[in-house]
Amino acid sequence: MSEIKIKVGIIGATGYAGAELVRLLIAHPNAEIAALSSRSYEGKRFSEIYPAFFGAVDDILTSEDAVIERSDVIFASLPHGLSEKIARKCIDKGKKLIDLGADFRLSSESDYKEWYGLDYTDKELHEKSYYMIPELMRGGYKGQPIIANPGCYPTSIALGISPIVKSGNFVRDSIVIDSKSGVTGAGRGLTQNTHYPDCNEAFGPYKVAAHRHTPEIEENIYKVSGEKVKVIFTPHLTPVNRGIVSTIYVTLKEDVALSDVYDAYVGFYKNEKFVRVLPLGSAANLKNVRMSNYADISLHKDARTNRLVIVAAIDNMVKGASGQAIQNMNVMFSLAEDTGLTAIAPSF
Amino acid sequence: MSEIKIKVGIIGATGYAGAELVRLLIAHPNAEIAALSSRSYEGKRFSEIYPAFFGAVDDILTSEDAVIERSDVIFASLPHGLSEKIARKCIDKGKKLIDLGADFRLSSESDYKEWYGLDYTDKELHEKSYYMIPELMRGGYKGQPIIANPGCYPTSIALGISPIVKSGNFVRDSIVIDSKSGVTGAGRGLTQNTHYPDCNEAFGPYKVAAHRHTPEIEENIYKVSGEKVKVIFTPHLTPVNRGIVSTIYVTLKEDVALSDVYDAYVGFYKNEKFVRVLPLGSAANLKNVRMSNYADISLHKDARTNRLVIVAAIDNMVKGASGQAIQNMNVMFSLAEDTGLTAIAPSF
Amino acid sequence: MSEIKIKVGIIGATGYAGAELVRLLIAHPNAEIAALSSRSYEGKRFSEIYPAFFGAVDDILTSEDAVIERSDVIFASLPHGLSEKIARKCIDKGKKLIDLGADFRLSSESDYKEWYGLDYTDKELHEKSYYMIPELMRGGYKGQPIIANPGCYPTSIALGISPIVKSGNFVRDSIVIDSKSGVTGAGRGLTQNTHYPDCNEAFGPYKVAAHRHTPEIEENIYKVSGEKVKVIFTPHLTPVNRGIVSTIYVTLKEDVALSDVYDAYVGFYKNEKFVRVLPLGSAANLKNVRMSNYADISLHKDARTNRLVIVAAIDNMVKGASGQAIQNMNVMFSLAEDTGLTAIAPSF
Amino acid sequence: MSEIKIKVGIIGATGYAGAELVRLLIAHPNAEIAALSSRSYEGKRFSEIYPAFFGAVDDILTSEDAVIERSDVIFASLPHGLSEKIARKCIDKGKKLIDLGADFRLSSESDYKEWYGLDYTDKELHEKSYYMIPELMRGGYKGQPIIANPGCYPTSIALGISPIVKSGNFVRDSIVIDSKSGVTGAGRGLTQNTHYPDCNEAFGPYKVAAHRHTPEIEENIYKVSGEKVKVIFTPHLTPVNRGIVSTIYVTLKEDVALSDVYDAYVGFYKNEKFVRVLPLGSAANLKNVRMSNYADISLHKDARTNRLVIVAAIDNMVKGASGQAIQNMNVMFSLAEDTGLTAIAPSF
Repeated sequence: MSEIKIKVGIIGATGYAGAELVRLLIAHPNAEIAALSSRSYEGKRFSEIYPAFFGAVDDILTSEDAVIERSDVIFASLPHGLSEKIARKCIDKGKKLIDLGADFRLSSESDYKEWYGLDYTDKELHEKSYYMIPELMRGGYKGQPIIANPGCYPTSIALGISPIVKSGNFVRDSIVIDSKSGVTGAGRGLTQNTHYPDCNEAFGPYKVAAHRHTPEIEENIYKVSGEKVKVIFTPHLTPVNRGIVSTIYVTLKEDVALSDVYDAYVGFYKNEKFVRVLPLGSAANLKNVRMSNYADISLHKDARTNRLVIVAAIDNMVKGASGQAIQNMNVMFSLAEDTGLTAIAPSF
Repeated sequence: MSEIKIKVGIIGATGYAGAELVRLLIAHPNAEIAALSSRSYEGKRFSEIYPAFFGAVDDILTSEDAVIERSDVIFASLPHGLSEKIARKCIDKGKKLIDLGADFRLSSESDYKEWYGLDYTDKELHEKSYYMIPELMRGGYKGQPIIANPGCYPTSIALGISPIVKSGNFVRDSIVIDSKSGVTGAGRGLTQNTHYPDCNEAFGPYKVAAHRHTPEIEENIYKVSGEKVKVIFTPHLTPVNRGIVSTIYVTLKEDVALSDVYDAYVGFYKNEKFVRVLPLGSAANLKNVRMSNYADISLHKDARTNRLVIVAAIDNMVKGASGQAIQNMNVMFSLAEDTGLTAIAPSF
Repeated sequence: MSEIKIKVGIIGATGYAGAELVRLLIAHPNAEIAALSSRSYEGKRFSEIYPAFFGAVDDILTSEDAVIERSDVIFASLPHGLSEKIARKCIDKGKKLIDLGADFRLSSESDYKEWYGLDYTDKELHEKSYYMIPELMRGGYKGQPIIANPGCYPTSIALGISPIVKSGNFVRDSIVIDSKSGVTGAGRGLTQNTHYPDCNEAFGPYKVAAHRHTPEIEENIYKVSGEKVKVIFTPHLTPVNRGIVSTIYVTLKEDVALSDVYDAYVGFYKNEKFVRVLPLGSAANLKNVRMSNYADISLHKDARTNRLVIVAAIDNMVKGASGQAIQNMNVMFSLAEDTGLTAIAPSF
Repeated sequence: MSEIKIKVGIIGATGYAGAELVRLLIAHPNAEIAALSSRSYEGKRFSEIYPAFFGAVDDILTSEDAVIERSDVIFASLPHGLSEKIARKCIDKGKKLIDLGADFRLSSESDYKEWYGLDYTDKELHEKSYYMIPELMRGGYKGQPIIANPGCYPTSIALGISPIVKSGNFVRDSIVIDSKSGVTGAGRGLTQNTHYPDCNEAFGPYKVAAHRHTPEIEENIYKVSGEKVKVIFTPHLTPVNRGIVSTIYVTLKEDVALSDVYDAYVGFYKNEKFVRVLPLGSAANLKNVRMSNYADISLHKDARTNRLVIVAAIDNMVKGASGQAIQNMNVMFSLAEDTGLTAIAPSF
């Protein structure tokens, strides 16, 4: 185990992703929390907002500038549109940034404009940033000081779909993605839809054919396979706290057997600790990855329609956000990638 | 309001569908419960099994024969393979039967053999039976003494998909159906997957590409449209007590506008009380139909992939089982179809 | 069944109690909804706020004055401090008022001042009002035009404790009340504690030794028994949508047998449809009363400490709010008390 | 950090407490899992039963004898009545045993007979065993080879009540304990009450005045304070997976201020990492201790009735079972007591 201690700061520490970063980082042997900021709660103790940390993380919430000042690496978890300014400060001070927001995720500025309604105002920053799902993209990381941490849905989908799209054994434009997310995916902000009595014993889709993760999903497919495909993506809100299940439908080329697909997946992920291709006959379920950095993938074939069904399950807050961000930090600092991330899901 | 009082019996009264029939029937102005049977609990009071009915339905659970003897119409809610024998007794005694099981649902005996592993042993009964989702099939009902009550998933899907398949404006074999059901769909029998700590904070698919409702779904499409299509159908278990949401993906023919589809749906269901085509921009959610006989349908188009997304939500225990069975009874006895079924979902 | 149709209006119709009134009233044979008001949503349709009512209650939300104008009886469901003004208008126009808020519940103005921080400003109104849990107090109703509808916790507690306090067989000042409520009890307003991910998989007390229902609980005991006792009352928030369970501990006088207590309870409630004294050996559970106007009471004795444990379960939104309000309306209009309120809890 | 690696075996590894031991032990730096047994699943892989461990703990489940043979310390998690035989084998082979069952918890054989219906058949074993809640009893541990791990409810209650009973500032026989447990407390075995649709949206007490943890609770009070008191204890089943909240009512002697009680609690636990006395004004909630070994205690006084309300929250599976068992192992092997147990609760 390396003896280094990275000084870590979190901007937006009282949002769900921020709080999850704190939870994971205090168990990370090579990190120490240097500073936490919150616009809403500056001056309060972190443990006043999250009493689970009483006695363990009683740090007083400070400003963004103080976080940048005191840290080697800064995690920013903010609504979109706010990260460029922070990134500029980090770069100018020689600090590293892992951005959990959307501002550095899309390589196409026009996609960003179309889906988020904003422009890139400091374009140089985007050249210094790298979007990374480590299992798929770590090879291309060249030490960029900004890492764009992927969205939760795109992570589950890219991990689930990459081996089959890379193999080429599928029918273009046949991809249908039906995803289901736990409620933390909607964030800590209060809304009627996430008010307990309105959300409990409820289930339904939202932002049908209009979710901002769509271009990120398609760009990931392009990066892995060189294929420019259009996907349909429908997210649903599920009454659990955590987890995403993406059920992905892909029509196979003729004569592609499920066992061949399975072998391809196992081969694709053979060196990956966090991606588990389940034995044929099993079905992925978010309960087996909750609170963990694992992604479970199960594969199924409907011979009647020649469709492959890929089910990918992750914890939206860990592999879909804060855990992957730490995994990215580990890459950034050349630590073993699983450092601080080895917890297994509680099964109940 | 008609003054008739139909004597109603329930075989399998202590299963979930049976108990839901009791709950709905005691509020039905033209029905009176004549007898209830249960193999597991014969001799006990119904309210010992379901204490919610203490003081209201304290009937002693009796035998199947006694139920048939005392009733004008019998609801049977049993595992598959048991209904033919009961149907024979009903027919021989001149009683009517509404079967909530699977034994009379499929018109093709070979489909039944393939998916359920059993033969039809008393074929004459099948000629005296009629499968009925009233909104789609009441016109064909000719007074058959046996009504096969549809499955929960097929009900949600047939209501959701019929207008578009009937219109012909869709691409054959493009249909992908991703359904999510509450846990009552798995019945009252104990299993590890439905044990509370294993089922709560969990979500995933089951019987992928292998669920027995598949041939029933395809047969419904055929009945409505004359089209023999193959669908892929994936059910998921959702941690809510009740409700089904079916998200249905259909590729549209070129130049079919969402507004045209919407108009077609509104027209198709314009005389149907229980089917609500939601305003464009809304998304169906099971919370708005729970405990009610309503089916909510929302329509969405993904212009990027030219796919129609149909979301159909029902309560699996009401419109998907016991409520529709009573609706079918109302048809059978020429009562107003909504008699006893007008309750609105509690919103919380 | 009487042929009368009472014109009913609801002020505060988009709060949870208001929406529950709508749900129950549309099934009431002698009521018709005349008008609904909402400060937050005036001008919108009720079904826009609660889509479960789409096609059934599409009324446009209007003003409080319009509601009063068009109705024979007005239900008001508002935060405390707002009811006197509405009551004055109702009285002046000869309308009846059933107030679901706290403003008319306490007979002692000083208690109201102490616990709610406000004065009675229109004292005449309080002489024209009557607080009523029908099972305990209908005998004293003299046609007052204002009925104060009881709080949810006090209803469960008064029904649970009245027979034993009236019998005198208990030790004064031994009463400990530990109550647990579903989340609808906190209302429709958004708070962090009722945000789904903060509230799900959580459980704990709130307002310990400080809840405003305390004086109402004590006043009910006084009304029934003439005893001025102090109780300790601790409410807890439970992750279910609906229901209250109050576990009440009372030390018995020497030599009081459980069977005697049981007989006293059965006798006390022998003519009451909505109060069910469960057989000894059973335990009340909110699942058996959800969505219904029933109150279930179970009785237990701990011989080791000579304590009686009374468990009282109601649905906080029905018997604890809107259902009891309609029951009170039935009393007010001399209808059978169970009119429109006979639904049994769904058991799942 | 010590370099020792204790060989740990688990008998009953597929029950909930067993699986939780596995989850915690694989993160323990000084333990390695040597063998796991299961009567129900011998010969299967552990990860077949708990797929969350796929790829991490794929050990084949073996026999009890093999577990004893291969381990330095054995955790046994079995129904009562089975531990003596295992203990005898352990002792004879010079192995240590930490028993999570009830068989070694009560020092009084007659209490065991009364509440569990069985005799002690190998009495020598009981002299070699020690019951230990470390915070309260570690001082008395003399290296006994058998540690009786406390019950979940008694742990929460002993931690909550010890400072006040030890202070003597309370009225004997005034103690009322109202506890609420998550559903894992009922174990992995299937029952109707824990079937999801029967358990979800439900809440109620069980085993009122009859729960087997009662004598253990009273014995703990006696050990700490020398007081033989009788308590009334009522457990309730709460629809969450994990956690216990015990609300404890104790009448204070005259003139005992809440601040004095608070100071006594803070002093009592000043060296205890896992017991957190919350600031006055806060209320303990199980969400802040879930998945962690922490116990949170909040203190409240009702001046009107002179009662102290103590709220104690733990995770029933961690501090109430497997976490405390590991804490006891740490004591047994002279490791830092928090080794492997420092995780903080996820707040959502």
